[in-house]
Amino acid sequence: MLFLALAAAQAEPLPSWRDSESRTQIISFVAAVTDPGSPDFVPPPERIAVFDNDGTLWSEQPFYFQLAFAIDRVRALADDHPEWATTQPFKAALEGDLEALVASGKQGLLELLMASHAGMTTEAFAAIVRDWAASARHPRFDRPYTELVYQPMLELLEYLRANGFQTWIVSGGGIEFMRPWALDVYGVPPEQVIGSSIKTRFELRDGKPVLVRLPEMNFIDDKEGKPVAINQHIGRRPIAAFGNSDGDLQMLQWTTAGEGRRLGVIIRHTDAEREWAYDRESHIGRLDKALDAAARHGWVVVDMKQDWERVYGFESAE
Amino acid sequence: MLFLALAAAQAEPLPSWRDSESRTQIISFVAAVTDPGSPDFVPPPERIAVFDNDGTLWSEQPFYFQLAFAIDRVRALADDHPEWATTQPFKAALEGDLEALVASGKQGLLELLMASHAGMTTEAFAAIVRDWAASARHPRFDRPYTELVYQPMLELLEYLRANGFQTWIVSGGGIEFMRPWALDVYGVPPEQVIGSSIKTRFELRDGKPVLVRLPEMNFIDDKEGKPVAINQHIGRRPIAAFGNSDGDLQMLQWTTAGEGRRLGVIIRHTDAEREWAYDRESHIGRLDKALDAAARHGWVVVDMKQDWERVYGFESAE
Repeated sequence: MLFLALAAAQAEPLPSWRDSESRTQIISFVAAVTDPGSPDFVPPPERIAVFDNDGTLWSEQPFYFQLAFAIDRVRALADDHPEWATTQPFKAALEGDLEALVASGKQGLLELLMASHAGMTTEAFAAIVRDWAASARHPRFDRPYTELVYQPMLELLEYLRANGFQTWIVSGGGIEFMRPWALDVYGVPPEQVIGSSIKTRFELRDGKPVLVRLPEMNFIDDKEGKPVAINQHIGRRPIAAFGNSDGDLQMLQWTTAGEGRRLGVIIRHTDAEREWAYDRESHIGRLDKALDAAARHGWVVVDMKQDWERVYGFESAE
Repeated sequence: MLFLALAAAQAEPLPSWRDSESRTQIISFVAAVTDPGSPDFVPPPERIAVFDNDGTLWSEQPFYFQLAFAIDRVRALADDHPEWATTQPFKAALEGDLEALVASGKQGLLELLMASHAGMTTEAFAAIVRDWAASARHPRFDRPYTELVYQPMLELLEYLRANGFQTWIVSGGGIEFMRPWALDVYGVPPEQVIGSSIKTRFELRDGKPVLVRLPEMNFIDDKEGKPVAINQHIGRRPIAAFGNSDGDLQMLQWTTAGEGRRLGVIIRHTDAEREWAYDRESHIGRLDKALDAAARHGWVVVDMKQDWERVYGFESAE
């Protein structure tokens, strides 16, 4: 009986995925590259899968969660910055005026980012992120942001690791913003998290070495930057890539252009009820060019509404 | 009998190390952090050891091996560049005039680096490095450069991995120069190699994505850069660091300043006969400030002449 139960468990991975074409294609890929008798066999050290984060592993609406973090930080620091009450983009952040915030443009968002993300040591910043992740709540679901991760993707991460894959995050989000919780939430250790970054500087403070976060961009891990970062951090080409937007197009191209069997997957946001529905016209997570490319390259397009039995882990408890 | 042999093998790690204080300190550290009953116990995912490369894992005399590679590349490309016969630093490289090469200064060396390391795709460069590593020979030993790795350090890498450590390389040398052979020679996979780098650019060539190496520095992984790179790539503080020169000082400071038991090790070049002897006055691999710091911080200083039964693996065969 136990044996049968175990066999059944092994035979049915990805329980939150409905019996769909996309699920079948993913499982068939994994079977092919892990079967030593298959012409598509890939040795474990080369089984590298890369995942975008925002919109692929967790939600990104009504706006990127890291922007919510930046706004919360500006509010927390406002007492020390009375000038923010009358200066954009800080005024907009303090008033929760998203429209004005967006109107402040790239430069405004960059200022907000630097004011909220720089000036402290790396250790102090990690503690700030951990506190925020434990206390902040998403406006629509009134839950910690880290609960807005997709249950089917958590199962996919587990399933791939159980099949000898390394699962890497390759996100436009901040590398130091993700690392403090990525292990607990995704099972992904810090050294397998890649993201955008600001510069840091080594200093001795009272003889104690620290890394200080500087208000200067180091690397933007988006679009053409993703293959560059993959090469820099991993040094080998992934065999599977998962994304959801045009920011992931080059990562998918880079991954699936390699020799041998490859898997490209796009998560499509089609479920306005359980999550959000958006694609070609969205300002956040726009999926346009990458959707056209998916058809040309034979990438799997996951339809969240159709293919997922549930979206979030907490749904089952309600 | 088999059991006893196995037990003996386990009881005597690091066979090329003489029974010395430095060997004892390394083994005692590993025993302490791997014993679940020890107050110094560290769980396996946090057992991160970082190694400098030049002068720590392989030799760096009469000059850095990557410079030998750059000179060989310039010679290989000289037919396409007749102007190099009369332009420095290329003339010096073609004539093997090291003095003139050094006299060309930092700018000259940078030009040599860019001419030899940039302009091709990452895949083409990896193939060039592999060919060079297989064919070039060290002037003193008339052997491939990759045979000038220290046998005691190979044993140390193995020993640490057998004890659940991740062994990372953190080198001033080029990240893409080391990766093509680091797995075969050191057992270190590409994703655990950190080094200096030039920028790369993502391009589609005839619809095929490539990464092109650009003649522009991206990051110099030396001195203060080493803790910065460790944070960027690994995202957690190592518990053990191995270096040999002032370029490793900050990496050793950063590593050993962490909480709990830590190990800092400096390999000191004391053996003019089997290898080279140099320290405070050397232009290559200068060991001065870091040697003073070792005494202050209680870092282990390995005396190559005294502590190592043999230096290179090929010695035993002779």
